[in-house]
Amino acid sequence: MTANFTATDHAHMARALRLAEKGAYTTKPNPLVGCVIAHGEDVVGEGWHERAGEPHAEVHALRGAGERARGATAYVTLEPCAHTGRTGPCSEALIAAGVARVVAAMRDPFPQVDGAGFAKLQAAGIAVSSGLMEAQARALNRGFLSRVERGRPWLRVKLAASLDGRSALASGESKWISGEASRQDVQHWRARAGAIVTGAGTVLADDPSLTVRLGDATPFVAPLRVVLDPGLATVARGRVREGDAPTLYLHAPDAKPPRGLDAQLAAVPVREGRIDLEAVLRLLAQREVNEIQLEAGATLAGAFLAQGLVDEVLLYVAPVLLGETARPLFDGLGIDAMSRKFQLDVIDVRRLGDDTRVLLRPRAPVV
Amino acid sequence: MTANFTATDHAHMARALRLAEKGAYTTKPNPLVGCVIAHGEDVVGEGWHERAGEPHAEVHALRGAGERARGATAYVTLEPCAHTGRTGPCSEALIAAGVARVVAAMRDPFPQVDGAGFAKLQAAGIAVSSGLMEAQARALNRGFLSRVERGRPWLRVKLAASLDGRSALASGESKWISGEASRQDVQHWRARAGAIVTGAGTVLADDPSLTVRLGDATPFVAPLRVVLDPGLATVARGRVREGDAPTLYLHAPDAKPPRGLDAQLAAVPVREGRIDLEAVLRLLAQREVNEIQLEAGATLAGAFLAQGLVDEVLLYVAPVLLGETARPLFDGLGIDAMSRKFQLDVIDVRRLGDDTRVLLRPRAPVV
Repeated sequence: MTANFTATDHAHMARALRLAEKGAYTTKPNPLVGCVIAHGEDVVGEGWHERAGEPHAEVHALRGAGERARGATAYVTLEPCAHTGRTGPCSEALIAAGVARVVAAMRDPFPQVDGAGFAKLQAAGIAVSSGLMEAQARALNRGFLSRVERGRPWLRVKLAASLDGRSALASGESKWISGEASRQDVQHWRARAGAIVTGAGTVLADDPSLTVRLGDATPFVAPLRVVLDPGLATVARGRVREGDAPTLYLHAPDAKPPRGLDAQLAAVPVREGRIDLEAVLRLLAQREVNEIQLEAGATLAGAFLAQGLVDEVLLYVAPVLLGETARPLFDGLGIDAMSRKFQLDVIDVRRLGDDTRVLLRPRAPVV
Repeated sequence: MTANFTATDHAHMARALRLAEKGAYTTKPNPLVGCVIAHGEDVVGEGWHERAGEPHAEVHALRGAGERARGATAYVTLEPCAHTGRTGPCSEALIAAGVARVVAAMRDPFPQVDGAGFAKLQAAGIAVSSGLMEAQARALNRGFLSRVERGRPWLRVKLAASLDGRSALASGESKWISGEASRQDVQHWRARAGAIVTGAGTVLADDPSLTVRLGDATPFVAPLRVVLDPGLATVARGRVREGDAPTLYLHAPDAKPPRGLDAQLAAVPVREGRIDLEAVLRLLAQREVNEIQLEAGATLAGAFLAQGLVDEVLLYVAPVLLGETARPLFDGLGIDAMSRKFQLDVIDVRRLGDDTRVLLRPRAPVV
């Protein structure tokens, strides 16, 4: 089913990937999907999936193409669906429109698709090939793929740090290390996330609202706010409970919620007195969270990192020094030899005002 | 004496500044100087100062121009000298060659020049103007200017750090945080320096040679290696004494050198048990050191910084984490409120292999 792809194929798929990206803040928990319908170089229809429950990318593109879809090639960033969810199956729509060829970037691992879309198209006599720009398509949907393939959300740790790697003063004071441009940039990453996770310590120290603050012209689906609070110590207070976005408290099984509390609660197992972080991730995956943005202190960030649960580090470095008594970036790593240093790969570096934003991924161990 | 400068003037001065830069590793302790001689847009001679004791930039450029210097404009990055040092005065050479106009980037604050060069040219009927691209010219000679104007060398702190701002493990182990490309880049900055300064602790922990390792095709004048060693505890050992570059130990007045020691020594005052860092800088300025590269541990780097003696931070950040028990970037800053955070300005950011190199300058206090 893989094939040699032409430059024209690549150009159309690149366009489809850019279209898919337009849904980054709104399609959750669905994957991002873009679609281009073309005859040779001529594009006759385009579309992207905008919102769960609304039409898929292929349907938008077919509407645009109309009769010109007949005999055309459809480029899709993900295998067309074969099942009837809240919308009809896209593979049937493509067949009905008479497209001659479907090029997909990747197979959809979602159990109700997982090859069934391709099979349906082929059974109808449509030429199907997959794997064009698959790496880019996987990167686009790293959250969705992580949830479906690994049973846990993609976890991004967002941190603001000084040049000397400190995330707060000894007193806990951390407002503001990074500049205005960085704090605005964070909003876009929050908007991508299905959940913003923090710890009780951060709620007490910083009282963050953990909402997405973008201009009115930018629609988004508000991420779930999640507080890891074993003893439900912070449940009665805080800006994290204000506003429209939902808030979920994850607590130890023996915690007693205050009487009459109006909040979402869920118990998670505790191991050695600490909340089981893998259980937290499983629970959020079951709630269809694709991407988590962790905005917490050094202890919680360090615990996720030390347990190998961090997929991405979004680091805003401000050109300031906070000194040797300030708090570390990640606590509890316990590195005692240079051979055990924690290695990451730099994905992207850019300047934001006076700050430098670095996106990194922990390097997979060689063995 | 300042004037409106044309685009052609700017172009020639920009070229002269680039020429001057070619002497960065060899002119010390002299300033970097470049010279372009032109008729309108046509360049007839170019030169730069290569080595102390050898001809100045103007002389090289006049040699290239020959008879065509008559009636031309000479662009120089620094006021032509008026005194006979190891070479004859350049102002006289320009007069003798019959140039009609001299454009300088800046006046030379060196006491034996300091306007006398301009005066001599004007007395001979040459049109003189100064101040074209002065900021760039000052940046080029920040070491020389610091020594002449402030009586102390320009101090650059070179550090290799992890993402979490650590310069070594708790054990002192620091080899290697940064990558090969960074370690090679450091050699160029060492070559610019008149002295590479370290502390006794670093000699004991790392045993660095502190030499310049560039290819044979790159000439340089070896910087003086300086070890701050109050008790002369490290004087008998170490790679810092090997090789051709000279080594100077700065010690407390009461330290007793080992009998028969063959090394350069100098006593510096001690305040509260610590070497007086301002006295160290004065002593090195007296020895005609323009630029210092400090390659030391967190304690010494932090002491220079806390005393306001650091002019530039050259930071190589590797995408690794060393954890909360590792050593800080600067020790002893004692920052207890966000309002007292130490602010720097980012001059340059670039990628070197997996590392990111950041050049910063401490921000001058507003009041």
